[in-house]
Amino acid sequence: MRKGLVVQKFGGSSVANVERIQNVARRVVSYRNKGYDLVVVVSALGDTTDELIELADKINTGASEREMDMLLSTGEQISVALLAMAIHKLGREAISFTGAQVGIITDTSHTRARIIKINTDKIKEELAKGKIVIVAGFQGVTLNQDITTLGRGGSDLTAVALAKELKADECEIYTDVEGVYTTDPRIEPRARKIKEVTYDEMLEMASLGAQVMQARSIEVAKKFDVPIHVRSSFSDKTGTMIIKEVKRMEDVVVSGVTLNKNEAKITVCDVPDRPGAAAKIFKELSGSGINVDMIVQNVSHTRKTDISFTVPKAQFQKAIKITRKAARNISAGEVIEDQDIGRVSIVGVGMKTHSGVAAKMFEVLALNKINIEMISTSDISISCIIKKKFTEDAVRALHEKFGLGKK
Amino acid sequence: MRKGLVVQKFGGSSVANVERIQNVARRVVSYRNKGYDLVVVVSALGDTTDELIELADKINTGASEREMDMLLSTGEQISVALLAMAIHKLGREAISFTGAQVGIITDTSHTRARIIKINTDKIKEELAKGKIVIVAGFQGVTLNQDITTLGRGGSDLTAVALAKELKADECEIYTDVEGVYTTDPRIEPRARKIKEVTYDEMLEMASLGAQVMQARSIEVAKKFDVPIHVRSSFSDKTGTMIIKEVKRMEDVVVSGVTLNKNEAKITVCDVPDRPGAAAKIFKELSGSGINVDMIVQNVSHTRKTDISFTVPKAQFQKAIKITRKAARNISAGEVIEDQDIGRVSIVGVGMKTHSGVAAKMFEVLALNKINIEMISTSDISISCIIKKKFTEDAVRALHEKFGLGKK
Repeated sequence: MRKGLVVQKFGGSSVANVERIQNVARRVVSYRNKGYDLVVVVSALGDTTDELIELADKINTGASEREMDMLLSTGEQISVALLAMAIHKLGREAISFTGAQVGIITDTSHTRARIIKINTDKIKEELAKGKIVIVAGFQGVTLNQDITTLGRGGSDLTAVALAKELKADECEIYTDVEGVYTTDPRIEPRARKIKEVTYDEMLEMASLGAQVMQARSIEVAKKFDVPIHVRSSFSDKTGTMIIKEVKRMEDVVVSGVTLNKNEAKITVCDVPDRPGAAAKIFKELSGSGINVDMIVQNVSHTRKTDISFTVPKAQFQKAIKITRKAARNISAGEVIEDQDIGRVSIVGVGMKTHSGVAAKMFEVLALNKINIEMISTSDISISCIIKKKFTEDAVRALHEKFGLGKK
Repeated sequence: MRKGLVVQKFGGSSVANVERIQNVARRVVSYRNKGYDLVVVVSALGDTTDELIELADKINTGASEREMDMLLSTGEQISVALLAMAIHKLGREAISFTGAQVGIITDTSHTRARIIKINTDKIKEELAKGKIVIVAGFQGVTLNQDITTLGRGGSDLTAVALAKELKADECEIYTDVEGVYTTDPRIEPRARKIKEVTYDEMLEMASLGAQVMQARSIEVAKKFDVPIHVRSSFSDKTGTMIIKEVKRMEDVVVSGVTLNKNEAKITVCDVPDRPGAAAKIFKELSGSGINVDMIVQNVSHTRKTDISFTVPKAQFQKAIKITRKAARNISAGEVIEDQDIGRVSIVGVGMKTHSGVAAKMFEVLALNKINIEMISTSDISISCIIKKKFTEDAVRALHEKFGLGKK
């Protein structure tokens, strides 16, 4: 009896070695034996992608993005073939495909391609034969047959996009944690696994540092209302459901606390307060591929103002160079760097309708004698930049104050 | 000025690490700078293919051939991407392709597919743009878009087939030796590099143990008259030309001496001398994929006869089991195994028109007190099976007697 179609995605740590591949195969087969049609998306084995990047860097640090995609896409191709073999060994029929073979058509933006369309004929054909269909994550192909990749975490996107196109009943994202937590359990042992979370909350958490799922894939899931189940490939426990709307008790205001220590802060002092001055700085930065994240500028009472922003640490050296040059060009003052920061955020759809959440957050930090350097808010999140050494204390204090810990 | 088109093939040892890939890139670019259009075929890095096979074996010793091809084809894909990056680094334009992307269409015999046709449009298009075109060796694709591989040494076949389809002026096979030698220089230091050798001689040498080129690729080169230049990727010296006809001094009878120590001998005693008895044994063996090579049966003077044959060592255990069973079924006698043998052969188109070559060979072996266990001859070769411990002495003695050593 056909029970429905499930798309399952296994990340690199779930297939890091032979034993884990066999473990995934057992899990997939036991699911298949329950009567579900299965499409399985796999990432590259363990650190394969990083190793291939390292190899390429030894040959050409400015490698062409087309050739980089040609190189990196082999990682997932290896995984799908090995998983198919492992499933065959357990006596079940399975067939593996590259992104190109199943017709995951993308644009030509190599290393960060966007999916244009998916031709699902081949998958449906093999599912109809009773086979488990295994698809290489993270990759696609242009209309001109060039291999592309979808950017870091792109296998999540492959899974969600396939779930949408195939009208799957559920999209399971298997990872090395048991679901989405109220905060990082390595920082706060009392962190609780969240049963249900909305797309918006998850998006906010992902962009604020939670590394459970790629943000773009959550956007797609939200857009097409694809239910996602984040769970562990090492246990049978139910994980976290990411869905459109969560029915919660009225008093749940904050769903989680996130921490991001991978950013650095740049402050440009004495920016002339005339239209376009700030724009020039950020135009230079984005033109060079720098991802500027948080930006803070106060209303100025003089003719000059200070602007602070954060960038990923990996891009910091490049960003500071560009900023200094741009600051000179607009006759701004000193440029101050600070790599010793962290961003602590609280996330929750509940805060939309509750006032005083920000005040409560600032109060908690003040009580712990933590100075706030920057503040940024969205509809469902509040972020504070503080000194790095205080970040973990801040996470624990906020987690406690907003009642997120285990009962 | 366009000088002509050359196909260059680099084997796994030529691209075994970063330095060697850079070395190949320099060689390719210096050739390109002379004005040639270039299509470069590359094998997988060093032992990558063996490592992938080992990985597959850990998961499923009886892995599906389709999935095996999916897995193994990644090796060459990695090589072509890295070589393209290395060429870019040297400032030259290059583009890499998988077998599927350039349209190397094969039949569906996974792991040993045959090329049906090659669509050269894409290659010609990129050559016209002035690019060096890099093609993954060893692989193709079925009309149904399944990835296939061409069997061991298949990159040679890719190179020769491309040279034929593109009407290349020459096909260069780069390897870790300087060309084809009169015999293995590790056995006989006085071995000479051969300047020119015919397709037939090369074919015979390849099937008799010389590991310079894959036999199937020489067959294709012969069929379509593709001139091949076997040479070293570590030196600029001219190597060996493999061509249709070689103009030699009349007295060159033997071109080379080969040695194959990778076979084992099986003798079935007292096979009933009736039609079909022997056939039954060989039908069983070939049905199980055993490659029977040399077969010797003497005319029988009684109602029973002995049949001896050789098989590759890797298939010996399987072969002996099948043979014992088949022998019982046809009521033959004892089955004797001998893994302690080697095959010494002399090869040369000259022997067609010279009598007494075989006699001379047997005489040399007799003088060295080497007993001959089996003899097999073709138009241009004579092979003797002897005890393994005598094989290297035999090679040296024959090399000397037929005047092959350095002058």
